Amino acid sequence: MRKGLVLVVSAPSGAGKTTLCRRLLSLDSEISFSVSYTTRSPRPNERNGVDYFFVDKETFKKMINEGAFLEWAEVHGNFYGTSLEQVKEAISSGKDVLLDIDVQGAFQVREKLGREAVLVFILPPSFEELEKRLKKRGTEDPKELELRLSVAKEEIAKAQAFDYLIVNDVLEEALDRLYSILKAERQRTFRRSDLIMRFF
Amino acid sequence: MRKGLVLVVSAPSGAGKTTLCRRLLSLDSEISFSVSYTTRSPRPNERNGVDYFFVDKETFKKMINEGAFLEWAEVHGNFYGTSLEQVKEAISSGKDVLLDIDVQGAFQVREKLGREAVLVFILPPSFEELEKRLKKRGTEDPKELELRLSVAKEEIAKAQAFDYLIVNDVLEEALDRLYSILKAERQRTFRRSDLIMRFF
Repeated sequence: MRKGLVLVVSAPSGAGKTTLCRRLLSLDSEISFSVSYTTRSPRPNERNGVDYFFVDKETFKKMINEGAFLEWAEVHGNFYGTSLEQVKEAISSGKDVLLDIDVQGAFQVREKLGREAVLVFILPPSFEELEKRLKKRGTEDPKELELRLSVAKEEIAKAQAFDYLIVNDVLEEALDRLYSILKAERQRTFRRSDLIMRFF
Repeated sequence: MRKGLVLVVSAPSGAGKTTLCRRLLSLDSEISFSVSYTTRSPRPNERNGVDYFFVDKETFKKMINEGAFLEWAEVHGNFYGTSLEQVKEAISSGKDVLLDIDVQGAFQVREKLGREAVLVFILPPSFEELEKRLKKRGTEDPKELELRLSVAKEEIAKAQAFDYLIVNDVLEEALDRLYSILKAERQRTFRRSDLIMRFF
């Protein structure tokens, strides 16, 4: 049996990462999101253990200290983290895990999992297009827009450390590339020594 | 513009490599075979510079000494080789090159091109299936069959040094995996620094 892999997808806000990830999950049954831990309050329709594991800050910080997270981040005062144990269990049983996380989180995963993780960075076609998409999403305030674009630029500079780059210009093409990366990485020799061993 | 890559496909005889390579070429317009050099005589329908470059042994050996070949081999007393210059020109101009060569040739390419080459090994589903396919192709002599199977075993042992493994059980699935590898490798960050540079 092959070992699973962790597919990490990062992108600047507005590059279309979330749509790509959702579409990928609908195409393939062997990959799924892991359920994250968070300290934010559940919304009315959210269920503990399904959408998130909802924990208090004290618990979350204890988990950080115990090294329980593959990656974690603080966003607007709330903590979000991916359970290392949960991910390790999934890949040991031959399941792939999709992580839709930011650049810093991606680097935490690379550090912890090495080549068991595959890092993909989604690029917008251009800054002009990114600006257009952010405006369309309702980022009206010029200062806010300026900030988002400058953060995007910083993130794109770090894309050099990712394994793969995909420009999200035409969605179907970007999706085909992302799915190709997943399918190709499943055939990597170091993940598939089982295929050779059968002959000896 | 992205730089091209060299896709090397190797397999034991009977694994279905030739069919896979032909089908891949028909799917994608950015990859093509390079025209090899050979010392064997042209067949009636073969044209110099199209099917092969036909040269005499003296010329071929001179080319070996000059380091003109990316890889070369002697098969049944005839020499076959891939021009290093031709391949380098192709990849510099953003074209991908497909090489359908044996394990030794694949290792020569890896040595000369490093990660510009992508090494894929095609495996038969099992030894039993390989035996069946070889018999179907007319390998009737038990000694000849024995020899082919033992060569196959040696080659499969070397597959560990390839980048990717594909089992050719269902042809369409194997083809999809091979094409995915090509599409994924085109998105590798080290080949696509052009995509990041546009933002700076």
